[in-house]
Amino acid sequence: MAQQAEQPQRTDVNTLGEFGLIEHLTQRFPLLNASSYLGIGDDAAVIDNGNFKTVVSTDMLVEGIHFDLMYTPLKHLGYKSVVVNLSDIYAMNARPRQITMSLGLSNRFSVEALEEFYEGVYLACEHYGVDLIGGDTTSSNKGMVISVTAIGQGEKDKLAYRSGAKVGDIICITGNVGAAYLGLQILEREKQIYLSSPEVQPNLENQTYCVGRQLKPEARRDMIEQFDKAKLIPTSMIDVSDGVASELFHICKASGVGAFLEESGVPIHPDAQLLALDFKLDPITCALSGGEDYELLFTVDPRDLEKVKYLPDIYIAGEITAAKDGVVLHTKGGNIHPLQAQGWVHFNPNKG
Amino acid sequence: MAQQAEQPQRTDVNTLGEFGLIEHLTQRFPLLNASSYLGIGDDAAVIDNGNFKTVVSTDMLVEGIHFDLMYTPLKHLGYKSVVVNLSDIYAMNARPRQITMSLGLSNRFSVEALEEFYEGVYLACEHYGVDLIGGDTTSSNKGMVISVTAIGQGEKDKLAYRSGAKVGDIICITGNVGAAYLGLQILEREKQIYLSSPEVQPNLENQTYCVGRQLKPEARRDMIEQFDKAKLIPTSMIDVSDGVASELFHICKASGVGAFLEESGVPIHPDAQLLALDFKLDPITCALSGGEDYELLFTVDPRDLEKVKYLPDIYIAGEITAAKDGVVLHTKGGNIHPLQAQGWVHFNPNKG
Repeated sequence: MAQQAEQPQRTDVNTLGEFGLIEHLTQRFPLLNASSYLGIGDDAAVIDNGNFKTVVSTDMLVEGIHFDLMYTPLKHLGYKSVVVNLSDIYAMNARPRQITMSLGLSNRFSVEALEEFYEGVYLACEHYGVDLIGGDTTSSNKGMVISVTAIGQGEKDKLAYRSGAKVGDIICITGNVGAAYLGLQILEREKQIYLSSPEVQPNLENQTYCVGRQLKPEARRDMIEQFDKAKLIPTSMIDVSDGVASELFHICKASGVGAFLEESGVPIHPDAQLLALDFKLDPITCALSGGEDYELLFTVDPRDLEKVKYLPDIYIAGEITAAKDGVVLHTKGGNIHPLQAQGWVHFNPNKG
Repeated sequence: MAQQAEQPQRTDVNTLGEFGLIEHLTQRFPLLNASSYLGIGDDAAVIDNGNFKTVVSTDMLVEGIHFDLMYTPLKHLGYKSVVVNLSDIYAMNARPRQITMSLGLSNRFSVEALEEFYEGVYLACEHYGVDLIGGDTTSSNKGMVISVTAIGQGEKDKLAYRSGAKVGDIICITGNVGAAYLGLQILEREKQIYLSSPEVQPNLENQTYCVGRQLKPEARRDMIEQFDKAKLIPTSMIDVSDGVASELFHICKASGVGAFLEESGVPIHPDAQLLALDFKLDPITCALSGGEDYELLFTVDPRDLEKVKYLPDIYIAGEITAAKDGVVLHTKGGNIHPLQAQGWVHFNPNKG
């Protein structure tokens, strides 16, 4: 009888990083079934069902790591925990159809608290037209753990992987990035003020946009519908959960290419611009390294440039280059320097 | 800013029970997609893919609630966390093809510890021919949380639901039940001895069978294969994770029937018989209320009785009756009394 976690040799899990760790642990797993079309390493896995493909994605959210119930209403948390998974399915250019939801809960949660959480789950399911088809609710010794699996459908020849970017492809970003990270900074600041002076009312005036991006993000279903109407298939795509820089590195690694990113092409909301300056942060750093925007980063063949130009809320932010040219940022000041792969995970002290 | 978990009205989650809670929280969710063939309430959900169906099941395992790392080797834990999900897929008379695995881990786990866990996951995937196609690895503030989703395939007309039992159907149980619960009792006893006298070596002699049933259960793939060869389709089926009594109630409730269970027909392993007496427990109580055996409880049409008789390791344990006759146990002593719905969850103080 011995503590299993104590081993003769002990390598800290942080030495490998999140992605390195998964790769290390799963590299020897072969795919045995013909229907297992794509395994680990993209936004979602792909199961071959003949004329269409089933797309599967899963995420775990842990209290104190991914969310803080001090400033996250449970209804918003329920909504967000669904949306972040749907975002992975859209990032495959597929449509989510079903989710399963597993919850681990300490006894400090009441039925009423859970009802509030499920109200958010319900609203997300209704809004995105997905069905809650299964789940598990169990005890935990501490806090709340949420595990969601999303299942979607995609047409055989329309799925967009991380691995399809080619030299000369145009890099595009939807909506705007960085606001969710800045929203988190406000919430953290107000939390600290509340903890030291509970009588002070939180000051969220003029910051509803960024706070909303953090607490109630949406997935870009509209983009997938636009692509479909415009008969546009991105050559590669990923959702921005860990930050544009980190996601661009994923695409470049999976596709074996480099990237030339234009600072002037990275869309930042005016409120996020102002707020970054308020926090004495560089807006472009927030935009590139802040996570949880759930926008789409994708590449298109240059022949599709005209199509992209006519679609609303899509910004052209650079070009795919040869792998040997690396992943670089062309700043507004005219400098070109290597992009830092630093994503959300390392950027935000709350994430582990 | 206020603790969200504190609500004006506060109903303890335990008042509704695990199944009541899920039902309460999910009852208003409609199924929006044509492909969502079956939602919450069976061993697995069913997605319609035309000529065959996709079957999805998910489970969350929490350290300190579902497993104790003091006596559970991580490799066994990895194996078991896969097997318990596959068991749900087999219980639909379907074949598991893929799994996703999400882990929440505190920093006390090393890479080597995780490698051991994944070695078990690997062995289970290899043994059952399933592919690990996705997952998420994240930090937790305390302990280990495992969330697995299994995805399987079933033929349209061969799936077995909980709801198909009809009056006159024969109740069958595979293998034997109760041993996993008794294995847990041994492990708990040895843990207490170790905690009070660390120099005493654990005494697991002659108890390898029951301990093995607890630490390294197997799912009954062989039964699904037998059914297929014998062209037998159970009218209803469920896997024994919470105990035979609890599972039989699920079938009766879903099918709108009663059941007449024969004590003499409930299979108990000789080692479990002896061990129950050792612990001054009634073997039939352990068999009916002990969980984690991962055997199959199913019903067949009486016209299929001959087929069942010739299949190995299947025991005939009673008959489905009208709902008004209730769910009763016919004891070896000749008494007939209502079966207690008491399952694993309530029986074992370790479970919440």
